[in-house]
Amino acid sequence: MVHITRRERFSAAHRLYVKEWSDAENYNVFGACSNPNWHGHNYVLHVTVKGVPNKKTGFVENLKVLSKILKNKVISQLDHKNINLETPFMKGIIPSTENLALKIWQEIEPEINATNCTLHCVKVSETENNSAEYYGVFFEKNA
Amino acid sequence: MVHITRRERFSAAHRLYVKEWSDAENYNVFGACSNPNWHGHNYVLHVTVKGVPNKKTGFVENLKVLSKILKNKVISQLDHKNINLETPFMKGIIPSTENLALKIWQEIEPEINATNCTLHCVKVSETENNSAEYYGVFFEKNA
Amino acid sequence: MVHITRRERFSAAHRLYVKEWSDAENYNVFGACSNPNWHGHNYVLHVTVKGVPNKKTGFVENLKVLSKILKNKVISQLDHKNINLETPFMKGIIPSTENLALKIWQEIEPEINATNCTLHCVKVSETENNSAEYYGVFFEKNA
Amino acid sequence: MVHITRRERFSAAHRLYVKEWSDAENYNVFGACSNPNWHGHNYVLHVTVKGVPNKKTGFVENLKVLSKILKNKVISQLDHKNINLETPFMKGIIPSTENLALKIWQEIEPEINATNCTLHCVKVSETENNSAEYYGVFFEKNA
Amino acid sequence: MVHITRRERFSAAHRLYVKEWSDAENYNVFGACSNPNWHGHNYVLHVTVKGVPNKKTGFVENLKVLSKILKNKVISQLDHKNINLETPFMKGIIPSTENLALKIWQEIEPEINATNCTLHCVKVSETENNSAEYYGVFFEKNA
Amino acid sequence: MVHITRRERFSAAHRLYVKEWSDAENYNVFGACSNPNWHGHNYVLHVTVKGVPNKKTGFVENLKVLSKILKNKVISQLDHKNINLETPFMKGIIPSTENLALKIWQEIEPEINATNCTLHCVKVSETENNSAEYYGVFFEKNA
Repeated sequence: MVHITRRERFSAAHRLYVKEWSDAENYNVFGACSNPNWHGHNYVLHVTVKGVPNKKTGFVENLKVLSKILKNKVISQLDHKNINLETPFMKGIIPSTENLALKIWQEIEPEINATNCTLHCVKVSETENNSAEYYGVFFEKNA
Repeated sequence: MVHITRRERFSAAHRLYVKEWSDAENYNVFGACSNPNWHGHNYVLHVTVKGVPNKKTGFVENLKVLSKILKNKVISQLDHKNINLETPFMKGIIPSTENLALKIWQEIEPEINATNCTLHCVKVSETENNSAEYYGVFFEKNA
Repeated sequence: MVHITRRERFSAAHRLYVKEWSDAENYNVFGACSNPNWHGHNYVLHVTVKGVPNKKTGFVENLKVLSKILKNKVISQLDHKNINLETPFMKGIIPSTENLALKIWQEIEPEINATNCTLHCVKVSETENNSAEYYGVFFEKNA
Repeated sequence: MVHITRRERFSAAHRLYVKEWSDAENYNVFGACSNPNWHGHNYVLHVTVKGVPNKKTGFVENLKVLSKILKNKVISQLDHKNINLETPFMKGIIPSTENLALKIWQEIEPEINATNCTLHCVKVSETENNSAEYYGVFFEKNA
Repeated sequence: MVHITRRERFSAAHRLYVKEWSDAENYNVFGACSNPNWHGHNYVLHVTVKGVPNKKTGFVENLKVLSKILKNKVISQLDHKNINLETPFMKGIIPSTENLALKIWQEIEPEINATNCTLHCVKVSETENNSAEYYGVFFEKNA
Repeated sequence: MVHITRRERFSAAHRLYVKEWSDAENYNVFGACSNPNWHGHNYVLHVTVKGVPNKKTGFVENLKVLSKILKNKVISQLDHKNINLETPFMKGIIPSTENLALKIWQEIEPEINATNCTLHCVKVSETENNSAEYYGVFFEKNA
């Protein structure tokens, strides 16, 4: 079993806030990230899948296939978008880096597991200093 | 004469569009960058100043001083902001990377030239693939 | 359960040597790292914690909290210091990258586990080519 | 138990293709990577080993030893080589990133495990966007 | 006048050698780079153009236009190619990093100068340690 | 004329202070950099030379030659050293990044200009945020 990782990038706007809270409460928890006029990031996405390399091709997964899934299901919904307003799979969910990793996992897991490999990790980096990784429910049960 | 460079970072939202143009015209020129719901970037700023190192300190400029100017005049107006709506020195100016470099130059030149060194270059990187540099009017006259 | 990682940096001097050994013996094992006049590095620290994202905030841990723990307990004791002479939690311990990872873990684990998340990994990079990771005693028992 | 990682680099030519397939079939699966005239990459190798730091030296493994094993067994066989034609341990094996990780593992495991530590992971990055990791058979059995 | 820079990448095979020289002579000058079986790199290309930002768009040059020129004239001739055998504009020219920078300049200068901006610099990085920059004949005359 | 750049690295300890000043005065100007127990950095050195590529080899300068000069004259005197105490060419000079760039220039200029190319720039990066560049006296006279 070998793990392979594909890096993709997207640039998006977002805002961290809880609707029921006042601006002051939001600022207290989220700081400048709660700016009602939005701010944004160059996000970096690393998706890791695992499987047995095919005897002929040497591939766990053809990266063209993996990259296409990521572009169709994830990048097209996030790149140059406002995550709070425009990303269907983030509707009603606070767009923290943690939740992005979780929701991207849910978005791509069925398509990836329909190929010969298994989704292992979704990592979302918001800045060079901050990132989140999600390894799925199976991992949690067995950790 | 030695050049020194300080790197700073800011995360901001913006939109590229011309008010008088239709959405279709804007999309035709600016593509996804004209998204009316905004998008954003982790910008990287490199500011280069030049001068003669002080005999005692070995410094062209104490980086604490340079960093403070950059924070007060630039980063505080851009970080976690919407550049189109909230950055005073970008008011009414389309927030292309080129214009950001130009306007940051104008914002900091008086304060930097009031120290013992001269502003040499303002470089703004919007993504790992795209950046703009401005060297000032003097440079242009003598290039 | 989601993992989040915070990057911090510190610049420090150190020396690798065993007191009971001669200079020649130390040089034989540690090479130039045993230089009695010290040398130094720009260290990079990645700290990973894990937990369930809060329903409201979407945070496993507010990074302001994590960053504050790291600054108070770790960075303030290492940045612009001589690790052999000045870092309390490294007193009497040879400052290899491995030991830095181990000791930083011990230094921050109580404070991090007092929040709603669990310390998962401390990674210390000494140069772009060399790094060490520590995952704690629990991990070892269950590996 | 602590993990340490050493980064090494090698520049090599390769071609992905299945001998029994026509050029069209190869192109269909491997795209431009099947170019009969070869292409190449700056590969980055990260090798992670784990063990208990030595009480005296603080080292899981002296990186001079690890680096020497990597240079003798791996880098000398790959750097500035044509992997398909000239790398003994890749003879008859399609040089995908996955297979490089697998075969480098097999090449270095005996020598590394003859020291006081255990091989944990071999990671091969082909470009800034694509990489493969292998954790060995033991890991698979216990995953 | 503002400078803007676009980064592109290509992976290629090449060999440094002088046809009239023996293998030993070639090895003596070019070392492992003269390997008759080829080797390869992930090259990074930075192209800098300069001009006056358009009042409406804020662009010195629409990066879509610049990127398209680079893809048509340069990347399509180099990516996943053998530079010695397959790149038309390098035919009969030793593929040193210096010559790549020179020839890419000649390849793109007419098309770029047909837009409203001027080509300023072509930078080719062969590895993280080695790169070459070319600034054109005008620059040389006025340097 | 083409410019080529070679990157080298060194890890060293240093201290910024003026002997005649009190500890308080030094701290006031240099902050934590004046720590009497030293601190250190992973310095990155970029040396740029320029010249006409050789018709046969395509080289402005064989990088083996350039790298050898840098190792003999610079890296061997700085790597794993205390710059204040052990680097001959920095004796009596405050080891600011500016002065390192200046002095490295003086150290290598004669040897580089004895080859067929001209030294153009010495860049020293102390951290990912701070760097200094020196272009020589000729540049200053003609700037």
